[in-house]
Amino acid sequence: MQANEFNEVLLNRRSLRALATTPIPREMSLRVLEAARWAPSCSNSQPWRFVVIEDEPELNAVKSALKPGNQKWASSAPMIIVVCANPEDDYLASGQPLYLFDCGLATENLLLQGVAEGLVMHPMAGWEEQPMKDAIGLPDPYRVVCVIAAGFPGPVENLDVDLQEREKSPRVRKPLDEIVVFGTWPKV
Amino acid sequence: MQANEFNEVLLNRRSLRALATTPIPREMSLRVLEAARWAPSCSNSQPWRFVVIEDEPELNAVKSALKPGNQKWASSAPMIIVVCANPEDDYLASGQPLYLFDCGLATENLLLQGVAEGLVMHPMAGWEEQPMKDAIGLPDPYRVVCVIAAGFPGPVENLDVDLQEREKSPRVRKPLDEIVVFGTWPKV
Repeated sequence: MQANEFNEVLLNRRSLRALATTPIPREMSLRVLEAARWAPSCSNSQPWRFVVIEDEPELNAVKSALKPGNQKWASSAPMIIVVCANPEDDYLASGQPLYLFDCGLATENLLLQGVAEGLVMHPMAGWEEQPMKDAIGLPDPYRVVCVIAAGFPGPVENLDVDLQEREKSPRVRKPLDEIVVFGTWPKV
Repeated sequence: MQANEFNEVLLNRRSLRALATTPIPREMSLRVLEAARWAPSCSNSQPWRFVVIEDEPELNAVKSALKPGNQKWASSAPMIIVVCANPEDDYLASGQPLYLFDCGLATENLLLQGVAEGLVMHPMAGWEEQPMKDAIGLPDPYRVVCVIAAGFPGPVENLDVDLQEREKSPRVRKPLDEIVVFGTWPKV
């Protein structure tokens, strides 16, 4: 495989919202989760856990713990993946809880492999933690880190009009020279 | 590109230590950084900044801020990338500082694109924050999140004997059934 073909998946991944209700085949889910498994982590601590919800009534319970903006479009998702971690399984870097960074590394693998498989993978920060923990039965001291709506691409017409436009609009990122410095940080 | 070809890069990425001193061509570095740029983040906040150090005396200063275990093997790295973030640029999820999670998402893109380009990309948590900030001139309130040694693969014989063995040993991860739950969390 060429580096530029690989690059295409990374550059074209986007957090779409139009999801089909079609179930995701188990072998596909397993490849996606296996990709997350091989991420790096601080001292190989692997603090990530993935709770995969596909069946009712749990699926509806999990969707009910999303914030209203996400509930609307994520209602058709056939799978919700809740990324969890035990903060005690990981290390601090100068006081910063690295379990969040490590979960980010693994979650990106999961998102990218899903996209490479032809899935929509939409990571969300909009959820209420305790209701989400209740919905999946997650005990303390585990924390919910991210919630991902997953499914095959669905009909855009089912989305609200404003979201239909967002689905097709160009993605926006800061230009490279705002996020990259070659050499030391510029003095002000 | 096939999903299984994409998968190979994710499954075979590993944090090697044997680095050649050969400089990384700038166009390759830019593709690697561009891959990070397109990562998702909470509300598209893009809290990540990448400080890329390739020249002396800064390169040596940055390496001196690594913990001794990393200093030994990372000494030959022609490039050190310091992943930084301003915590104020991002959100809290139930009190958890999401800039760390978002930086993890972007850093994994960067690592994977580097590996797809044929580079060794080794993320490290072993560094001293204030000396690292001093070495790159990073002002408050920015934090150092991760430091990456990057370069082309080099001669394994140059590593200490114990690291030579680690370089060739099989990688170890928790089995999938320890990190994945289908359905709600098992009751104890």
